[in-house]
Amino acid sequence: MSELGQATGSALDALAAELPEQIVLRDPDLLVSYAHDESRFTGRHLPGLVLLPRSTAEVSQCLAATHRLGLCVITRGAGSGLSGGANAVEGAVVLSTRRLNTILRIDPVDKVAVVQPGVITSALREAVFEHALLYPPDPGSVEICSIGGNVATNAGGMCCVKYGVTGDFVLALEVVLADGRVLRTGTGTVKGVAGYDLTSLFVGSEGTLGVITEVTLRLVPAPDPPTTLLATFPDAGAAGDAVQSILSTGATPSMLELLDRTTLAAIEQLSPLGFDDTVGAVLLVQSDSSTAAADVTAFEEACRGSSAIDTVTSSDPEESAMLLHARRLALPALERLGDWLLDDVCVPRSRIVDLIARVERVATAEGLTIGVFGHAGDGNMHPTVIYDDADPASRAAAVRAFDAMTGAALELGGTITGEHGVGRLKAAWLERELDPVARDVQLAVRRALDPSARLNPGAVLAPSVESGVV
Amino acid sequence: MSELGQATGSALDALAAELPEQIVLRDPDLLVSYAHDESRFTGRHLPGLVLLPRSTAEVSQCLAATHRLGLCVITRGAGSGLSGGANAVEGAVVLSTRRLNTILRIDPVDKVAVVQPGVITSALREAVFEHALLYPPDPGSVEICSIGGNVATNAGGMCCVKYGVTGDFVLALEVVLADGRVLRTGTGTVKGVAGYDLTSLFVGSEGTLGVITEVTLRLVPAPDPPTTLLATFPDAGAAGDAVQSILSTGATPSMLELLDRTTLAAIEQLSPLGFDDTVGAVLLVQSDSSTAAADVTAFEEACRGSSAIDTVTSSDPEESAMLLHARRLALPALERLGDWLLDDVCVPRSRIVDLIARVERVATAEGLTIGVFGHAGDGNMHPTVIYDDADPASRAAAVRAFDAMTGAALELGGTITGEHGVGRLKAAWLERELDPVARDVQLAVRRALDPSARLNPGAVLAPSVESGVV
Repeated sequence: MSELGQATGSALDALAAELPEQIVLRDPDLLVSYAHDESRFTGRHLPGLVLLPRSTAEVSQCLAATHRLGLCVITRGAGSGLSGGANAVEGAVVLSTRRLNTILRIDPVDKVAVVQPGVITSALREAVFEHALLYPPDPGSVEICSIGGNVATNAGGMCCVKYGVTGDFVLALEVVLADGRVLRTGTGTVKGVAGYDLTSLFVGSEGTLGVITEVTLRLVPAPDPPTTLLATFPDAGAAGDAVQSILSTGATPSMLELLDRTTLAAIEQLSPLGFDDTVGAVLLVQSDSSTAAADVTAFEEACRGSSAIDTVTSSDPEESAMLLHARRLALPALERLGDWLLDDVCVPRSRIVDLIARVERVATAEGLTIGVFGHAGDGNMHPTVIYDDADPASRAAAVRAFDAMTGAALELGGTITGEHGVGRLKAAWLERELDPVARDVQLAVRRALDPSARLNPGAVLAPSVESGVV
Repeated sequence: MSELGQATGSALDALAAELPEQIVLRDPDLLVSYAHDESRFTGRHLPGLVLLPRSTAEVSQCLAATHRLGLCVITRGAGSGLSGGANAVEGAVVLSTRRLNTILRIDPVDKVAVVQPGVITSALREAVFEHALLYPPDPGSVEICSIGGNVATNAGGMCCVKYGVTGDFVLALEVVLADGRVLRTGTGTVKGVAGYDLTSLFVGSEGTLGVITEVTLRLVPAPDPPTTLLATFPDAGAAGDAVQSILSTGATPSMLELLDRTTLAAIEQLSPLGFDDTVGAVLLVQSDSSTAAADVTAFEEACRGSSAIDTVTSSDPEESAMLLHARRLALPALERLGDWLLDDVCVPRSRIVDLIARVERVATAEGLTIGVFGHAGDGNMHPTVIYDDADPASRAAAVRAFDAMTGAALELGGTITGEHGVGRLKAAWLERELDPVARDVQLAVRRALDPSARLNPGAVLAPSVESGVV
């Protein structure tokens, strides 16, 4: 053990000694499941120690102690992230929000929910639905991810084309700062301009500015069951045109998803839905407004005007679910083809077709299967590389393809991450996206909130941590 | 002249010498109109010098020079603010964005406008309307205020109940930092989580973090002409109940404004509209959705269910304008009664009735007329004190009333400012609204962006500057 290691070991001992034993894990067999999230190709280490605080007061106690002892802290929600933002670094303390999992309040009159960060997103959605309310954000991992993680990454989902991202629903936060102090941001009012918007600063900050311990969320009246449209197209270009047309109808879709030819082929292998070779892309579109039937008719006309091969619509909930089946199978179908590396890039909506063309060129150049699906209405796509993790050459090709696609998004006027966050996977990429002034300002803000640089070191704006072994 | 005064004078001379003479004003007769905004009871001084840069490059040149010379800079938009945020302090440089007044681009496909900060808000609204697009924010000063000022204060207006505030439309910013460096925030995409949300940090920062030199704004399709409802009530309590009922119909009003008895009496004096003594409050409600007629019928039923005396609706644009006439007359009518001091407080929507009751008690206690009107749908009201500026006792009573109303908003779970900003008028109040941790974090962020504390000193989070004389 190095000297640094010894010092860290002593500090971890001291930390364990002063905190309630019920919230401290040190058994290596248990620590291993806190080493990393669901990302690939990101550095990860066994945590030095895991903390499972049960209250804001305990989080504050934990951070006051880690601050005093000079220990780094990685905050972990449900661990479903895909960017390595919750991966442990050597000697670090992982603080899990798992036990902070209470829905504190649902107010149907003010349409507000107050929740702890460990609440699973689908559990909140179900709870507010009983009050005829909707919490719209619906990341793909909605059944397993937590609200705290959603806020920390500003998570999205299929709802965003109409409702916006997680941050659009966050009214106020309680945050424990790096030194254990407890901060409250936001107001209990709809409008308010009293001081800087610290709430938005913490949204998407990926555990680098503090530990979110309470979230006040805006809710909306639950809409009627949606009407659904499935449209097939000869190629992605036609589908991309249809996306523009749909968004120009004046009606607002509540979902606008695209599946490309590669993804459709994978789906056909898993569960034949009858898409033949003439189908090069599919759009899935919904409206949940009070004029849903008329909206979907307008969307259907927009698709037909953009060379759609065929369209099917339904307002029946069961039939709608069947039409969405293809979208749900996208990732499971691609997963069956091999190991997968899922990218998350966002381009101006007018450049989706260019992005898909670039991905096809990358797939050809690297001899890899890359399926593209995602939130076309936001320009936010998930090109997914299929590779063989046991084959070093395939791994290298996957990384090259991933880098080429992320670079293509930047060249198309887009961003390296639409909704998954930077984490450790794209920390080096963020250095490329930001100009030097933006980089300096981001780091200055980070230093202002965490002067000792103890929170999630190596994540977001920092050189990528070298890959470690657990 | 004090030593400080001499040093500042030399620095101002040096500044004038190194900048293009066409952008420097030093004639005291001209400086006087840059001394303050439209606020009352706020410190104001003659600026040391006024800068009128014509480009981002010139703004950068100005700030690099003021930074080097140790001069403070007050950024000024159109000067229509009501919180003293643009008031000069002694020896400061006032930088006006007046000449940065070009609409750089309107993109009807991506529904985006890129504008310089000096563009007048109504000019932008008219320009995008020619493309069948709407830029929703509509502060009361829409005809004279500028986009840069709107962003700096996160201005609102009557649209917010449906569309949100200025910040909800800001996608990206160009900002010149305190030392002259040029920062770009945001992305050209709908979603993006690459780094901290610096855009939201600058929105509402009132010139304390940098000078905004370019704004990328989201636009929406222009809605149909609205359908309007005017409902009269026996008292504010009934109108407040109706606000809750209207917001529970499921339909979204595009306007939801309230006028209280005092405001209505003032309007009757200016331009008799036939509201007799039985009318204690009026609501003005609009819907601009595709189901406007049905929406307004639902709103009308909600009002009738909350003891409305009478209701009138119209979908005819001219008749709608006539119904809105009373709202437009609110401030002009109150202004005719004497000098006025307009407050801007925001409470949870469920507390509007309590706020109005508290204001009535304050008016009685101080023997003053105080009219209440504003954006009931947001809980954002503008209690307006009528006083005699020439009478010291009346001035003192006005200040006491203002303080009592602002305090009442805090006690009701609200905030000291819904849309006008803190400026110098409420800097001391912000110290009361924020807890010590929030105050520390706000100041840490400010120091991170402006380490030498040269930008808008005394505004927002700082003791109020003593009132000076111009």
